[in-house]
Amino acid sequence: MQNFEYCTPTTIVFGKGVIEKLPEVLASIGRKVLLTYGGGSIMRIGLYDKVKDLLKDFEITELSGIRPNPQYDPSVLDGVRLCKENGIEVILAVGGGSVLDCSKAIAAGACYDGDPWDLISYKVKAKAALPIVDVLTLAATGSEYDMGGVISRAQTNDKIGYMDPLLFPVCSFLDPTYTFSVPKWQTAAGIADAMNHILEQYFCEDSTLMNDGFCESGLKSLMVNGKACIVNPEDYKSRAEMMFVCTLACNNIMSLGNSESGWPMHGIEHALSGYYDITHGVGLAIITPRWMKHILCERTLPRFVKYGVNVFGIDPSLDKWEIADQAIGKTYAFFEEIGIPMHLREVGIGPERLSEMAHHVAVNEGLDSAYVPLSEADILSILEASL
Amino acid sequence: MQNFEYCTPTTIVFGKGVIEKLPEVLASIGRKVLLTYGGGSIMRIGLYDKVKDLLKDFEITELSGIRPNPQYDPSVLDGVRLCKENGIEVILAVGGGSVLDCSKAIAAGACYDGDPWDLISYKVKAKAALPIVDVLTLAATGSEYDMGGVISRAQTNDKIGYMDPLLFPVCSFLDPTYTFSVPKWQTAAGIADAMNHILEQYFCEDSTLMNDGFCESGLKSLMVNGKACIVNPEDYKSRAEMMFVCTLACNNIMSLGNSESGWPMHGIEHALSGYYDITHGVGLAIITPRWMKHILCERTLPRFVKYGVNVFGIDPSLDKWEIADQAIGKTYAFFEEIGIPMHLREVGIGPERLSEMAHHVAVNEGLDSAYVPLSEADILSILEASL
Repeated sequence: MQNFEYCTPTTIVFGKGVIEKLPEVLASIGRKVLLTYGGGSIMRIGLYDKVKDLLKDFEITELSGIRPNPQYDPSVLDGVRLCKENGIEVILAVGGGSVLDCSKAIAAGACYDGDPWDLISYKVKAKAALPIVDVLTLAATGSEYDMGGVISRAQTNDKIGYMDPLLFPVCSFLDPTYTFSVPKWQTAAGIADAMNHILEQYFCEDSTLMNDGFCESGLKSLMVNGKACIVNPEDYKSRAEMMFVCTLACNNIMSLGNSESGWPMHGIEHALSGYYDITHGVGLAIITPRWMKHILCERTLPRFVKYGVNVFGIDPSLDKWEIADQAIGKTYAFFEEIGIPMHLREVGIGPERLSEMAHHVAVNEGLDSAYVPLSEADILSILEASL
Repeated sequence: MQNFEYCTPTTIVFGKGVIEKLPEVLASIGRKVLLTYGGGSIMRIGLYDKVKDLLKDFEITELSGIRPNPQYDPSVLDGVRLCKENGIEVILAVGGGSVLDCSKAIAAGACYDGDPWDLISYKVKAKAALPIVDVLTLAATGSEYDMGGVISRAQTNDKIGYMDPLLFPVCSFLDPTYTFSVPKWQTAAGIADAMNHILEQYFCEDSTLMNDGFCESGLKSLMVNGKACIVNPEDYKSRAEMMFVCTLACNNIMSLGNSESGWPMHGIEHALSGYYDITHGVGLAIITPRWMKHILCERTLPRFVKYGVNVFGIDPSLDKWEIADQAIGKTYAFFEEIGIPMHLREVGIGPERLSEMAHHVAVNEGLDSAYVPLSEADILSILEASL
């Protein structure tokens, strides 16, 4: 078991109707609010009106139009400018992981005098950040309970995971009913995203019995409840459990004391959505079984066997290699079953820039020290197998 | 899934040698320290000298002699007095759960002008508490990562679980090597204590797939690693995992969104150690299988079956009642195997005061709204079966 430090100071307020507490929580932080959101979904479900109604005593500035794979320019830069111009005291992010991630970068940038990219690119360590409160509308990234966000910068194809303990939300409101209207394809991408977060923690050199059990039950819950959400989008029980598993999946609580895995699938996927702006969860689902196949070897075999037996219930008396193969096949089949396009070509990515992406990943993602170290050639091979 | 709110602001610093960070952490909080501890064990393992050496630039006041089942009078009252007399800014608890629990009551009492019992008995809600930092030397109660403490008051046979979000430690230092010298009987009591914390969460009406998996893997880990610690007290890997499972076992993270169980076994045990000052974990181990037998019925059967199959690996094709019986038997056998005396008579408790205790529990612990409601007659019956 490895040494570690851990603290998640975020308060989770979970369940149906919890948004009624929003004014009380916000009022304890500040009155000048930057309300950040994406497109029309919070309008369609009436959440925008609800929030505006609850906060009629607050001074609200709005930043809308935050897109999936949120962009440094214009979203982060606009948000920072708005915060500075309006003396914003707290950011209220209403939406999914992209809105939250963008808001985190804004929160740090608003308290910094230079170019916010200095912070995101780790050239400068943030000294302060505005407090963030969020109302989540999508079960996927876990940004509501972690200290990171992923920001893209189109001009350089960069997609950077920016982390700092200052960026934990103060309070996250999680009402599963807000996810009832999430379309099937996006629900599926959320399932894949969260499953991958857990897999990135599960596949490591040194783990504990408890952590393995945490990860396995998180994965099983995502598969059972995720599928139920796709079949019946208004199944509260399943939406609720899926939402909360996603929340815990990216918070490290399932792998404290485990050795670092290096999050290799994320490293590779960041190039896909950085270059092609595809949905992150879809990119991860495509990469996952190919990465698994690529790293399966004598050394990693026991982990695949444990995964296969405990997550998919594969007969433990089978040959170990057979169990591993079946486990990888079942991973692929599950993603396919929930409707995810499982080839890069299906999401508009051809062979043209695979080498360039492999090079970008090898240079920027440090995967030579991952659980199974990956060279540029390894990365290219995984990308090619994903076509 | 039930609505819930959750926040644990404590920082965990885990692993071998982490105490070197203690001065830095304390210095960020205050220089006037109340050092609280129990008896000789922190002397024997050299921890007392180490702490004094690390903190030679701090102003230290000491409160020693805190006993298991920590007492309101004298420990809490003495601690409160010392804090007020010396303008204490931070409490440093070095020891196990009892030292921590006592320190929490002191922390609240030090910021209150009246009789601290007002706070502990919930007559008055605390408005502030001194910050607490701890160095843990015993894997058991989980007090290092929760907001509660249990305080006994001999003159009234009261044993009250006192909880307030103000009482979360600021920072808990968990170095598994400090538990190497814990004697076998005490290690066993710690295992039973933490297992019971998980069982109190697991046996409830409404739970999630993920939470069930969390609880089951916590239980399995405690049994495997706990036994390994008893066989080889200096097995770092097992001591480390046992320590961290205990830390998470009382924090609710394994049951967020589950329905309330009412913690019935704790309700009953508090009378045992309140009246007879026995070791809490031993009392819990004795009560556990008798409570299980008492509440086994058509309605609770599925939970016992899940417990038996997933925790003990009992053949799921057996008759359900047979699985439940085996599961209860295996629970009893495990406690016996790790050396816990499994009858009240063995720890000096005869039939004399059982009725009085049952009455005390029925009046004070609210078990009529537990997972399976318990009347005074039920409680007495469980106590009698434990003789």
